[in-house]
Amino acid sequence: MKLNGIIAYPITPFKADSQEVDFDALSITLNTLLEHDCDAIAPLGSAGESAYLSWEEWQKVAEKSIEIVNHRVPVILGISELTTNMAIQKAKKAEELGADVIMVLPISYWKLTDQEIYDYYQEIAAATKLPIMVYNNPATSGVDLSPELIVRMFQDIENISMVKDSTGDIQRMHKFHELTQGQLPFYNGCNPLALEAFCAGASGWCTVAPNLLGKLPRQLYQATNAGDLAQAQKLFYKQLPLLRFIVQGGLPKTVKAGLNELGFSVGAPRKPLQSASPSEIHQLKSLLKFATTA
Amino acid sequence: MKLNGIIAYPITPFKADSQEVDFDALSITLNTLLEHDCDAIAPLGSAGESAYLSWEEWQKVAEKSIEIVNHRVPVILGISELTTNMAIQKAKKAEELGADVIMVLPISYWKLTDQEIYDYYQEIAAATKLPIMVYNNPATSGVDLSPELIVRMFQDIENISMVKDSTGDIQRMHKFHELTQGQLPFYNGCNPLALEAFCAGASGWCTVAPNLLGKLPRQLYQATNAGDLAQAQKLFYKQLPLLRFIVQGGLPKTVKAGLNELGFSVGAPRKPLQSASPSEIHQLKSLLKFATTA
Amino acid sequence: MKLNGIIAYPITPFKADSQEVDFDALSITLNTLLEHDCDAIAPLGSAGESAYLSWEEWQKVAEKSIEIVNHRVPVILGISELTTNMAIQKAKKAEELGADVIMVLPISYWKLTDQEIYDYYQEIAAATKLPIMVYNNPATSGVDLSPELIVRMFQDIENISMVKDSTGDIQRMHKFHELTQGQLPFYNGCNPLALEAFCAGASGWCTVAPNLLGKLPRQLYQATNAGDLAQAQKLFYKQLPLLRFIVQGGLPKTVKAGLNELGFSVGAPRKPLQSASPSEIHQLKSLLKFATTA
Amino acid sequence: MKLNGIIAYPITPFKADSQEVDFDALSITLNTLLEHDCDAIAPLGSAGESAYLSWEEWQKVAEKSIEIVNHRVPVILGISELTTNMAIQKAKKAEELGADVIMVLPISYWKLTDQEIYDYYQEIAAATKLPIMVYNNPATSGVDLSPELIVRMFQDIENISMVKDSTGDIQRMHKFHELTQGQLPFYNGCNPLALEAFCAGASGWCTVAPNLLGKLPRQLYQATNAGDLAQAQKLFYKQLPLLRFIVQGGLPKTVKAGLNELGFSVGAPRKPLQSASPSEIHQLKSLLKFATTA
Repeated sequence: MKLNGIIAYPITPFKADSQEVDFDALSITLNTLLEHDCDAIAPLGSAGESAYLSWEEWQKVAEKSIEIVNHRVPVILGISELTTNMAIQKAKKAEELGADVIMVLPISYWKLTDQEIYDYYQEIAAATKLPIMVYNNPATSGVDLSPELIVRMFQDIENISMVKDSTGDIQRMHKFHELTQGQLPFYNGCNPLALEAFCAGASGWCTVAPNLLGKLPRQLYQATNAGDLAQAQKLFYKQLPLLRFIVQGGLPKTVKAGLNELGFSVGAPRKPLQSASPSEIHQLKSLLKFATTA
Repeated sequence: MKLNGIIAYPITPFKADSQEVDFDALSITLNTLLEHDCDAIAPLGSAGESAYLSWEEWQKVAEKSIEIVNHRVPVILGISELTTNMAIQKAKKAEELGADVIMVLPISYWKLTDQEIYDYYQEIAAATKLPIMVYNNPATSGVDLSPELIVRMFQDIENISMVKDSTGDIQRMHKFHELTQGQLPFYNGCNPLALEAFCAGASGWCTVAPNLLGKLPRQLYQATNAGDLAQAQKLFYKQLPLLRFIVQGGLPKTVKAGLNELGFSVGAPRKPLQSASPSEIHQLKSLLKFATTA
Repeated sequence: MKLNGIIAYPITPFKADSQEVDFDALSITLNTLLEHDCDAIAPLGSAGESAYLSWEEWQKVAEKSIEIVNHRVPVILGISELTTNMAIQKAKKAEELGADVIMVLPISYWKLTDQEIYDYYQEIAAATKLPIMVYNNPATSGVDLSPELIVRMFQDIENISMVKDSTGDIQRMHKFHELTQGQLPFYNGCNPLALEAFCAGASGWCTVAPNLLGKLPRQLYQATNAGDLAQAQKLFYKQLPLLRFIVQGGLPKTVKAGLNELGFSVGAPRKPLQSASPSEIHQLKSLLKFATTA
Repeated sequence: MKLNGIIAYPITPFKADSQEVDFDALSITLNTLLEHDCDAIAPLGSAGESAYLSWEEWQKVAEKSIEIVNHRVPVILGISELTTNMAIQKAKKAEELGADVIMVLPISYWKLTDQEIYDYYQEIAAATKLPIMVYNNPATSGVDLSPELIVRMFQDIENISMVKDSTGDIQRMHKFHELTQGQLPFYNGCNPLALEAFCAGASGWCTVAPNLLGKLPRQLYQATNAGDLAQAQKLFYKQLPLLRFIVQGGLPKTVKAGLNELGFSVGAPRKPLQSASPSEIHQLKSLLKFATTA
């Protein structure tokens, strides 16, 4: 499995009235992402409000998403859970449903030691044959995985095979490269770092951006690939204000607001999360226009 | 309802073999806490591994704990949940089961705005008649409630009637006092701040310490109450190394290790949390001895 | 030398027109501090704009201050300097001029290692017979001294005999007490922590507050000494808004503004520092009134 | 004045015995830097221990450096000072001595407000005709200049014409680009960010690296300029371990150690700064070898 380029993160649409998952809207938004030439699809990540879904909902969204993508590109399924047992249960279900990769974020309530994190990953890895993308995002999970720990797991545990880092700290990526002589594929999960992560050697960009920006993220990837830095800068600086806005506002709220503006009916995020305010929507529209105007 | 003094936090015991809740051990540990003259009991808090329990387990522990305490002191029940809907469900169940107060911590995955936090509390408050203790603990919940927001909720929402702050920042307590001219009862949830919080006017100390230290926490409360600062310092500095140790090591792990050492069989914390290591247990024993030797 | 209670920090007055040191105003403000029953006087500290004075100015202010105090209380002279050689020069001059104690803050441009800090203090200590107050204030100096390092210097170096901590972190004070079994006298340099530092066993409060609040700081000290916590809280909460204001606004600016309001002509701080704005002065006046009204 | 590429920072050599400035060594090290095709020379910066020199020493080093460079490339002179008056004095002297640009870092003891920073720069700018490079390095200066403030000064004050940012935060550079539509030339002062800063559009890299790595920094610049990202990555990852090491160890100590190893006799940094330890020197040698081996 060699993943490169744009790994697109769908949101999980809810019906406006009942807050139930809207599978029709899920189908439409997933198919639209695929039309934007994304290189992989990653359902049930942070942006997919995975943490806010019941176990039943999670299974249905996973099953339906894999069915919709239908092998057109690889599916990377988010299986983050607080307890080891529940994470194992999700990992097994992901494999049973036909996911290609699982993405694992060690959510914490109590801070975890390195040994607790290591054993968490090892037990999940032992329960599945699927390749695992280690996901580090201390801002949402409350636990920070050092590059040294991640590299140790990559070297020790067979199906741990890539890492997504969302800290926005480019020095982490340098460390992944150095500690493994370039052997550990790393992916950038911090949108405003997209340009520099590619320049530092990232294999891909894990992002919701194609939901709102279509093929622009992929064009940035292609420009850096071609060594056309002037074009890459131009493409990046066009997208950057929107990328920063969606990160600062929280992805479920801002991406759903943007999709609703674009004519998709994807509902609101689940409470306590709230919808974007009128002034946020106003700002979002102007940033969308800035990004997509030549 | 006027709560003062020591609010004791039980752990949730698990059976060694099955990791199921051990209700016999729960009964023994709760009764022991009551023998130490605690002024209230707060089941299903952070130390009670509430976040790691299933909905069924949570209900059974709540029911059984209230039954065991049997009105000897007030019961403050932790109902923290990620989604508003689930938190409301727990609040209603707490009232139905006969809790005296509910303690509410806004756990987050995505960061919450002040408005999202406010509405979260307001919806919970509207669903119950029970008094609410706002609980701020950004280290575990990932969201920090400003004193200004807490005071606004205290002033606007009828059954929000007290606050527990675990940041360890004494300036927060000053703010509670100043912004309400001393009207908002505040409780300290940071063990190594116990002495100074009482000196600054805290109504109580929310703590697991009585599990391991018996009546020592209450003696500290009494000494500050009596204005005997020399005695208060003496009592505090005896307990402090242990208090710091249990905070740094994580409460479920260290308090369970201590109870097991003291002859209670309370099992291990739930994975990914792990039991204390032999060297941690060794250190714990020496700190227990330091605290309890004259 | 046993210092207890209120250690008052004078500002360094400048003439309004020439920005030269105003020695008449220095004499008046120092004498006024002494009338407020301060237990020691500490010229040329942070509040005294020591860092902004030339070597010639520093010597004259030191000489004149010692002369004005004239043995009524001990004089603690600030000798902070970037280079070791210049700090030694100041230490020798302090001794020659008749200071009772020198206060030493290791200002840094490049971060210092523990060994560099240790040797800095050791070389200064070797150059003088005066007792040394180690001063830790990372917010102004850029370098943070750990309690462990401070205690090691206290134990190893003969004339290092006390510590002033301005971090506002009460846990540092706990550490001083624990690591030396109460042998290291510690002083609090964070004004909004005044109440709790005394409760934790601080020997004194290093503060500019008597410049603006007269005997109120000393009354707080006396109330905690007497174990009258209700009175101590009352006195503290009266002063706290002003204490917080002067810390947040920067001491030279706010204290000079207050003294000018009280009828002392002490001029402006030295550029790039600026005088308080009209709205800051307005706020300061209302906080002064709040603090000094019964 | 259009500066692009590698702006090299010399150290200030001291004699081994007397700690006096060694002008012969200064001449040798400056000439060596010029042989490495640097695009500009910046004496008396952080690495040049400017903060540790007397006013007399500063003038002599400035004069001598300008004389040695002798118009072969532009000279950017660091004039950082705590007080506005002293900074103005240095700015005038820099112009008188024939510097091409002055670099200004607002060192602080008391934190500065935006207005205080603005006025500090404006007064210096009014005292000289030289172009000014605003320098932001909160880790050494203790004050952080927001991109918004820097851009405002660039737009308002005529001879403020470029900015060097050493925070290592690539998002600052994005802001410079966005807020001025690419009009404000920005330079990177954080060595481990060299690759990405060029990719984001930095005009140059302000660095001590050529002292130890010769033409390698310039080759990195050329590779990114040519859009050869594979070659740029290769060149960057070779240099990175050394770049990280010199930043973490403090530039004066590590660069002087490296130059001494390379056969230049540049002495030790000025106390309280200390020379590199034997184990640091050992590590440095192995990193030098790693960087310079094909």
